[in-house]
Amino acid sequence: MNKKIIIAVDGMGGDYAPTEIVKGCVQALQDFPLKLLIVGHPEVLKKELSKYTFNEEQLKVIPAYETITNEDSPVAAIRSKKDSSMVIGLRLLKEKKVDAFISAGNTGALLAGGTFLVGRIPKVQRPALAPLIPHKNGFSLLIDCGANVDAKPSYLAQFAYMGSIYMENILNIPNPKIGLVNIGVEKEKGNEVTKAAYQLLEDSPLNFIGNVEARDISYGVADVIVCDAFIGNIILKYTEGFGQSLFDILKEELLKTPLSKIGAFMLKSSFKNIKKRFDYTEYGGAPLLGLQGLVVKAHGSSNHKAIYSAIKQCIRFTEQDIVSKIQNSIIE
Amino acid sequence: MNKKIIIAVDGMGGDYAPTEIVKGCVQALQDFPLKLLIVGHPEVLKKELSKYTFNEEQLKVIPAYETITNEDSPVAAIRSKKDSSMVIGLRLLKEKKVDAFISAGNTGALLAGGTFLVGRIPKVQRPALAPLIPHKNGFSLLIDCGANVDAKPSYLAQFAYMGSIYMENILNIPNPKIGLVNIGVEKEKGNEVTKAAYQLLEDSPLNFIGNVEARDISYGVADVIVCDAFIGNIILKYTEGFGQSLFDILKEELLKTPLSKIGAFMLKSSFKNIKKRFDYTEYGGAPLLGLQGLVVKAHGSSNHKAIYSAIKQCIRFTEQDIVSKIQNSIIE
Repeated sequence: MNKKIIIAVDGMGGDYAPTEIVKGCVQALQDFPLKLLIVGHPEVLKKELSKYTFNEEQLKVIPAYETITNEDSPVAAIRSKKDSSMVIGLRLLKEKKVDAFISAGNTGALLAGGTFLVGRIPKVQRPALAPLIPHKNGFSLLIDCGANVDAKPSYLAQFAYMGSIYMENILNIPNPKIGLVNIGVEKEKGNEVTKAAYQLLEDSPLNFIGNVEARDISYGVADVIVCDAFIGNIILKYTEGFGQSLFDILKEELLKTPLSKIGAFMLKSSFKNIKKRFDYTEYGGAPLLGLQGLVVKAHGSSNHKAIYSAIKQCIRFTEQDIVSKIQNSIIE
Repeated sequence: MNKKIIIAVDGMGGDYAPTEIVKGCVQALQDFPLKLLIVGHPEVLKKELSKYTFNEEQLKVIPAYETITNEDSPVAAIRSKKDSSMVIGLRLLKEKKVDAFISAGNTGALLAGGTFLVGRIPKVQRPALAPLIPHKNGFSLLIDCGANVDAKPSYLAQFAYMGSIYMENILNIPNPKIGLVNIGVEKEKGNEVTKAAYQLLEDSPLNFIGNVEARDISYGVADVIVCDAFIGNIILKYTEGFGQSLFDILKEELLKTPLSKIGAFMLKSSFKNIKKRFDYTEYGGAPLLGLQGLVVKAHGSSNHKAIYSAIKQCIRFTEQDIVSKIQNSIIE
């Protein structure tokens, strides 16, 4: 790193804030020559920080006396809670006082705040929220899971560009495969939006592999899965719910009889391995791509490990200068 | 049963046709006082039938010398292959010579053929394909997974009516809970179509529980899951792919070490129970609701058990006179 990277972290957002947020920040400082600004209620944060020893030059508390909760209406909260940890964090990014801002708080508010306060990269029509979702042998980037529930074909094409840059530079995947979510693989399948988006992607320099059906996503057929936010949300949340319900069913069946309990005990490490293959906390949060700065949405139930990974992700994003790369390559 | 029910079955459609189709038909005849017409190439079907003994009064072969394959373009195939098993089966239904038609063949062609050849119930704006999908404690009806990829709000409301009638009369669920697939539970969430559909459903006499998020579907939050066919296809196929990939991962991990192999062996019956909870072959196929007759799409990889269940489903559908019930209750 040439210059010291500075990252702001929302100390008040998420189910386990501030405890796990602060813990993740302190751990990151042990491994990286960073500067972190934790934004939130100073007394609450200082009490948490008193549990640890750390270099005070590297970690500062930025006071914010309000908190945006999950119950708040996103746009109204960003407008009215000007002294909230989220708004102050986003302002620090806007004013280039930090390189990135991480929050595990209200997703809608972060999306709205990112767009209103940080602002889009010129030419980018809509910023997109892009989490990683697990597949059989790794992870794919699912773009968009944000706010664009009625996306235009040109938005989808831009999502593909941004997703490709991200996967190539952050996950080191050369020439990432781009797939368009559709109800069939043939070019003429789908609705008006997907048909037009297909044409734009086919004419692009991207490694477009065509339409992908939902049944192939879990087999890792594409590195970047492009869709509008409505579809993205369905896939993201269905993955969560279906996966969890399958594990619940498994648990129920394995604890039914004495024999099955013994069998389950013998398979403890196998089940641990499986769980690890789906562990999103290793990969940080979902970047909000297309803004003039890096905003990362960490999962609402982030623990310290997820926050640590999100910080690591921000370092790489900043070093690779993804914002400039998007700015230079995106086509209107 | 007052009058003998007659069901036509496409003998040539599906991955395991005609062997498994014929086997399922013969088994159904052992249990139900039906008449079955198997449509397809007479020599091929008669060769299969020669393996069994059955009452020839109850089972007839209807000759059809063409077959619509999965590679055929749906609309073109229905128009040009007039001597195909699918077109002839649909015509038998149109002419009221049979009460129902089952096919495990090309889904798109069956949808197109159902609409063009059998025809819609007056007032029904669009027929819908409605498979059952597994949840933690049973199955929900997912409507639509058919052809309406750009659905209007009024289509979605009608899907809810038809789905409710089906679940109440076929699966014996009193006052089925109706959920609208959306990206949040709040009324104002989603796109223009879901917002308008929400209002229509709220004003209806149905047991509308509001928006459902994708993460709750697998927990059985609603008996009828309403969405356009694009979303329905994504959910249906994602369930298939994600579930299969999870089982693949499980298998891989369980066969890794000698200890895990023993554990897996001890859990054999537990895994069998889990598999059974997801076994769609017990519930027949997906009805195409809204037509002037019953068309059932059996899964492409249907075995004899799936065909047997589909026949059973057709009996109940006919006895309950679902077509009249839809006709009498649906609102334009």
